[in-house]
Amino acid sequence: MTVTIEFFWDAVSPYSYLAGTQIEALAARNQAQLVWRPFLVGGVMQATGNRPPLTVPAKFRHMLDDLQRWAAYYGVPLRKPDNFPASTLQVQRIACALPDAAVSDWARATASAYWGRGEDISQPETIRRIASSLGHDADALLAAAQDDAIKARLKANTDEAVQRGAFGAPSFFIGDAMYWGNDRLPLLERALSSCR
Amino acid sequence: MTVTIEFFWDAVSPYSYLAGTQIEALAARNQAQLVWRPFLVGGVMQATGNRPPLTVPAKFRHMLDDLQRWAAYYGVPLRKPDNFPASTLQVQRIACALPDAAVSDWARATASAYWGRGEDISQPETIRRIASSLGHDADALLAAAQDDAIKARLKANTDEAVQRGAFGAPSFFIGDAMYWGNDRLPLLERALSSCR
Repeated sequence: MTVTIEFFWDAVSPYSYLAGTQIEALAARNQAQLVWRPFLVGGVMQATGNRPPLTVPAKFRHMLDDLQRWAAYYGVPLRKPDNFPASTLQVQRIACALPDAAVSDWARATASAYWGRGEDISQPETIRRIASSLGHDADALLAAAQDDAIKARLKANTDEAVQRGAFGAPSFFIGDAMYWGNDRLPLLERALSSCR
Repeated sequence: MTVTIEFFWDAVSPYSYLAGTQIEALAARNQAQLVWRPFLVGGVMQATGNRPPLTVPAKFRHMLDDLQRWAAYYGVPLRKPDNFPASTLQVQRIACALPDAAVSDWARATASAYWGRGEDISQPETIRRIASSLGHDADALLAAAQDDAIKARLKANTDEAVQRGAFGAPSFFIGDAMYWGNDRLPLLERALSSCR
């Protein structure tokens, strides 16, 4: 039986970016199906009463060091964007407008632009460039992000994550079991190996 | 050159318990010196504006699952104490009264009593039993915990941890570099290997 990992991610979340650099390989080596599910981490925090690390100065200082350590550990680039936290509303809505098979590339391209190179993914021109580089019709995607059905889809994903126990990003689900954070990938992998 | 890891721990912290089951072996295999430094995580949180996971219900529910997963991952027992969070003031003060070489055993014995078996380590009779099992004079230790110089030592450790950037437990230092959490042991180990 193929096990499914649902990966709730938001491009504004640096730990979603880090996890996103590892999760495809993790799923592949465990013969698991991976579903990238866009949500808004801000909405999840608001709904659950959780607060982002930057609200505690000492925690935020540690986070900046910690992100560089994880990037070095994984061997991936990481540059804190000047405009952190940026709005990822358009980027996340577009992910809801794309066909399922295109979401992983979109998620990784936008997260790499923001956390790998510090680009401002809240700006339409940045979104346009990323869309074009992936072979999408950029204008059509930006228009789709204004569609009520697409907006509702992103909100539904966010609400569903909260319903199922999420309080931050990234959040992984294997069925009912929720795993929070890039740092839980070893535990997620352990669960997958025991499923096989 | 021998590198020193300073491990700030509090027996009330389940992730301090988990890290404490791994850190001696980690230090040994990296030829690092390990110094167990008692502090009060509640004091650190108060000073930094951080809040414990149990203040966010969804986070606390995840934490209970997460603790069992780490315990299984490490192969160590874990049982949520009925009286969580208990006061560890006496236990942590006693750690400050013990000779340096005895602190590791005290830390691991008290954390194992609390998080491994769910015993109430806020109670003098529990403390007495642990002290005796380690060959200490239990009455002398309980009396030492009332000594002003010992009280001041625990407060100084807590203040120092905050000064150096800690906001929770466990907190590890290699010189100025702070690593927060049991889940950062792989990053701590990576730093140690690159020191050698």
